[in-house]
Amino acid sequence: MTAYDPNNIFAKIIRGVLPCERVYEDQHTLAFMDIMPQGDGHLLVVPKSPARNMLDVDPAVLGPLMTTVQKLAKAVKSAFDADGVTVMQFNESAAGQTVFHIHVHVIPRWEGIALLGHSGAMADPELLKSQAEKIRKAIGFNGWTG
Amino acid sequence: MTAYDPNNIFAKIIRGVLPCERVYEDQHTLAFMDIMPQGDGHLLVVPKSPARNMLDVDPAVLGPLMTTVQKLAKAVKSAFDADGVTVMQFNESAAGQTVFHIHVHVIPRWEGIALLGHSGAMADPELLKSQAEKIRKAIGFNGWTG
Repeated sequence: MTAYDPNNIFAKIIRGVLPCERVYEDQHTLAFMDIMPQGDGHLLVVPKSPARNMLDVDPAVLGPLMTTVQKLAKAVKSAFDADGVTVMQFNESAAGQTVFHIHVHVIPRWEGIALLGHSGAMADPELLKSQAEKIRKAIGFNGWTG
Repeated sequence: MTAYDPNNIFAKIIRGVLPCERVYEDQHTLAFMDIMPQGDGHLLVVPKSPARNMLDVDPAVLGPLMTTVQKLAKAVKSAFDADGVTVMQFNESAAGQTVFHIHVHVIPRWEGIALLGHSGAMADPELLKSQAEKIRKAIGFNGWTG
């Protein structure tokens, strides 16, 4: 498997070199809005430690990662009055992985509304900001200063 | 949210009341072939403890669950010489959940081969058996007697 590239965009977001619309953060994980969403409220959860994907990540990282995924799944369901939540995690490009820092997609769902394809279209930053604000409110996130 | 139904089919598989093509088992988790696969080698990982989905599961269950998911992701990649692995977990019917015991889909992927839709078509049991045998071999699973 290809080695981890410390200059992938999520690594830069974690280091604060690139911006993101942050919705949750703790010692181990960071969650932020997907800028090419497959639906309203689509966000990503990443561990702060480096790993390419599920095929190389330290198993000890998975518990804290999925605990944050669960928090965000509940938060988006509440924030957007959703009917359900899709959780997806892609490993290697054959599975749809495009950024090679392990990440989990959390997408609120409503009856009768299909997911958008991964078109590569960028979302309106103001829309993402207002969605992020709803999620932060639902999860009670006011910033993290660890 | 609707309460957990202890007579859902995965609960019956866990109790041994219904059969499955088992590929891995430990104290906390069970993995078996999806009988309506979206691709060759499609399997499911469930925790043995009752939970409807990610919205009600005890967070302590998530670490052991995802550790098994990781084991199986590596196993299917190796067993089927796959290019990647898709991991998905659906919460409530709006997200595609059809059995209401929390489960994680692990699906090997190859470049240029799309996932099948969830047609509801049953796989050939002999094909599932031969795929399961490859996975058991890759993960070194010879049964669990805890």
